[in-house]
Amino acid sequence: MAQAQHDMAELTEVAHALADAAGAAIQPYFRTKLTPENKDAQGFDPVTIADRAAEAAMRDVLAIRRPQDGIYGEEYGRQDGTSGLTWVLDPIDGTRAFICGAPTWGCLIGLDDGSGPILGIVDQPHTGERFFGGPNGATLTHHGITTSLQTNRATTALSGAKLLTTFPEVGQAAERAAFERVRDQVQLTRYGLDCYAYALIATGQVDLVIEAGLNAYDIQGPQAVIEAAGGIVTTWDGGPAHQGGRILAAGNKALHQAAMDLLNS
Amino acid sequence: MAQAQHDMAELTEVAHALADAAGAAIQPYFRTKLTPENKDAQGFDPVTIADRAAEAAMRDVLAIRRPQDGIYGEEYGRQDGTSGLTWVLDPIDGTRAFICGAPTWGCLIGLDDGSGPILGIVDQPHTGERFFGGPNGATLTHHGITTSLQTNRATTALSGAKLLTTFPEVGQAAERAAFERVRDQVQLTRYGLDCYAYALIATGQVDLVIEAGLNAYDIQGPQAVIEAAGGIVTTWDGGPAHQGGRILAAGNKALHQAAMDLLNS
Repeated sequence: MAQAQHDMAELTEVAHALADAAGAAIQPYFRTKLTPENKDAQGFDPVTIADRAAEAAMRDVLAIRRPQDGIYGEEYGRQDGTSGLTWVLDPIDGTRAFICGAPTWGCLIGLDDGSGPILGIVDQPHTGERFFGGPNGATLTHHGITTSLQTNRATTALSGAKLLTTFPEVGQAAERAAFERVRDQVQLTRYGLDCYAYALIATGQVDLVIEAGLNAYDIQGPQAVIEAAGGIVTTWDGGPAHQGGRILAAGNKALHQAAMDLLNS
Repeated sequence: MAQAQHDMAELTEVAHALADAAGAAIQPYFRTKLTPENKDAQGFDPVTIADRAAEAAMRDVLAIRRPQDGIYGEEYGRQDGTSGLTWVLDPIDGTRAFICGAPTWGCLIGLDDGSGPILGIVDQPHTGERFFGGPNGATLTHHGITTSLQTNRATTALSGAKLLTTFPEVGQAAERAAFERVRDQVQLTRYGLDCYAYALIATGQVDLVIEAGLNAYDIQGPQAVIEAAGGIVTTWDGGPAHQGGRILAAGNKALHQAAMDLLNS
């Protein structure tokens, strides 16, 4: 994180303003009768008016407060900036959860300096939880109470680890087989948590998240939170995570290595 | 529901007092470093001090307010009563979710008159959501605001339906195959929601929940909420659900029939 040359206090304030704006745009639509559009001709990739309204609301904030920064958002794509910083936005990560009324979706905000996120947010407006990660560490704010977050460093063997992922059908066949090699060694595997899974690593309650086929906007917000809480987020081969792809997030180095060994064996 | 001879106002008040007591007992333990015990020598069936504290707190309330009623709780078993009514209690449904820090567990309360629940609650203290079902309908109270709940009657074809279950490995092999026949026909399947899945049927946001191997205390609270919201809860063969077993919950009769046809084909 090369954040020294940036005004991190201002950028932190803007990040919270983005989450506030997105949450205000999304909440009126949650648990209403939305008719999602399907973005995927081969399958079902729903997008709703709430996704678009939230990203538009965040772009409005950035146009006023940080016009010099670039934007990369799931719904409206890329907009170049001049500052070297890019806001990487997923207005609703977990749109499937959203249209089911489940509280495991989140608004993801990452601020990328080109080498990865220098700060990030996972925001869950319905539960009232905001997970933040930046140069001063990671925090959870829940109904006005802010607590600091640390990943679990005590569990270092897979046999004691808790693993989360969104779909049991992880990626392509070889990716699924790799996931299942880890799944077969851990204490407990849970599905269906979307971005909330990464936030739970930051709380120290779970140990691993393994997913495939992610985009940059799926991971930069969560990555910033986990790294600030002491965890590790990379691709399955240990490379940088901030462009997405096949992602392994872990609460500590020993578990990260153990999972990586199985994913690549 | 043969509730005419009972004082439903008093019983409703007691049900809420039970949920309040359980929530107060559970919340101090949520997202702390609990070491669950394993109740299952062949697998991993965690129980925590929070489960036991919450059931004990509910039993304390009943000893004072309804000593004439029976109790059937997951952690402390059966206690006979003289009123013909039994409080069917699962202090934490979704202990796996609980020990992962995920907000999809719930405290389940059903009041059984012998033919099934005459009222019930699904309570989620962390999100601040209480789903209630009784003779006057179903409600969700979230941070002091109470709204009435109705299941989705508009979606009557499986191709438009949303299906939830907790584990992709539903039951035994034949049960899993039956589940997958339904899964292959619906619009969307999500995993990992525990009792929260049933509550989401009551909100009208999802349409079907299919599970196997349930106990009475896993289903009576949710059943009361869904039935009061206009939905249907039975075993896979259309029998009464209140003793548990293989459970099918649906938002309306057409979807219930369509799912039952596939489960039994």
